[in-house]
Amino acid sequence: MLTSPLLEKLIKQFARMPGIGYKTARRMAFHVLKLPEIEATELANTINELKGKITECSICGNVTENDPCIICTDSSRDNSTICVVEQPSDVFALEKTNEFKGMFHVLGGHLSPLDGIGPDDLRIKQLIQRIPDGISEVIIATNPNTEGEATAVYVMELLKPFKIKVTRIARGLPLGGDLEFADIVTLTRALQDRHSLEREE
Amino acid sequence: MLTSPLLEKLIKQFARMPGIGYKTARRMAFHVLKLPEIEATELANTINELKGKITECSICGNVTENDPCIICTDSSRDNSTICVVEQPSDVFALEKTNEFKGMFHVLGGHLSPLDGIGPDDLRIKQLIQRIPDGISEVIIATNPNTEGEATAVYVMELLKPFKIKVTRIARGLPLGGDLEFADIVTLTRALQDRHSLEREE
Repeated sequence: MLTSPLLEKLIKQFARMPGIGYKTARRMAFHVLKLPEIEATELANTINELKGKITECSICGNVTENDPCIICTDSSRDNSTICVVEQPSDVFALEKTNEFKGMFHVLGGHLSPLDGIGPDDLRIKQLIQRIPDGISEVIIATNPNTEGEATAVYVMELLKPFKIKVTRIARGLPLGGDLEFADIVTLTRALQDRHSLEREE
Repeated sequence: MLTSPLLEKLIKQFARMPGIGYKTARRMAFHVLKLPEIEATELANTINELKGKITECSICGNVTENDPCIICTDSSRDNSTICVVEQPSDVFALEKTNEFKGMFHVLGGHLSPLDGIGPDDLRIKQLIQRIPDGISEVIIATNPNTEGEATAVYVMELLKPFKIKVTRIARGLPLGGDLEFADIVTLTRALQDRHSLEREE
């Protein structure tokens, strides 16, 4: 029996989010209930503001509060390299590594003929338009799954005429992974992409 | 680099919730960003309303929008049995089982001398006051950990003079659990609480 339909409503709203099961959603809702009033209001405000303030960067397609975004306008970054990703969340993940200091290009998804998503539904044309602008390398960092690979191959083909360096992020065993439990495709890829130890820095 | 401080703020707010790591929080924030405007507003509203509308039931201590709560005012439930729990979330969990049709009593925590939480900080007095009101059984369903057990023992002692049935929820191996991997205490308890097969219904 629901002693509070409002609480149950919040649980359901949380449970709809990716990666959140009913029990986690329940813990979250009770956490919100216990929050000081000011923090709960702040959370609600952030959610409300988000929709109004966040837009898409007209250059790279990433989410931003100002167009162009602060990555595209940052003169300290290497603007001769573009890293192509599927989603804005991929930019967040890559930025966390502090490894890449170039520019980004968000495609907005991957090619998926079965879902009716073709090249025109992605920001591929916009990527091609950026190439003559002094780009020397394009790193394709779409996901290492069927759709991501197909998208990578498609983009690579389009980039061929430009005679620039086109690279693909490495696929192999994840760090801390167990060779014994790796799937066949990953293991095959790890063998194919093997490199001499001198390459390690 | 943060292309959106607002998005990063929401990620941090989500990541503060119990059981939510940074990556899950990021997925959640991007999910909120992709939500239709009306659904995002609804989520924000639910959070805002929650704090104002939800109060504590003056009888059982559970969270409710109306005092007394709908469990306490439901005449179809068995009002001679009280199930004692630590938190309102425990009521939610037990109600999901559809197994218990009696009343509840939320203590609001467990005894924890180290944290300065004594009997007066819990709703124990209120529980005792409910007993003369035709109660024939009290089921103590505090958590199966040190504090929960200590609280159970304390409450049991207080209930002794009333000559009513006082029971404790069973502890043992969880369903689907593996005997081989069970910890010693659980296994010991499972052996101690063994019952003849005739008891199964």
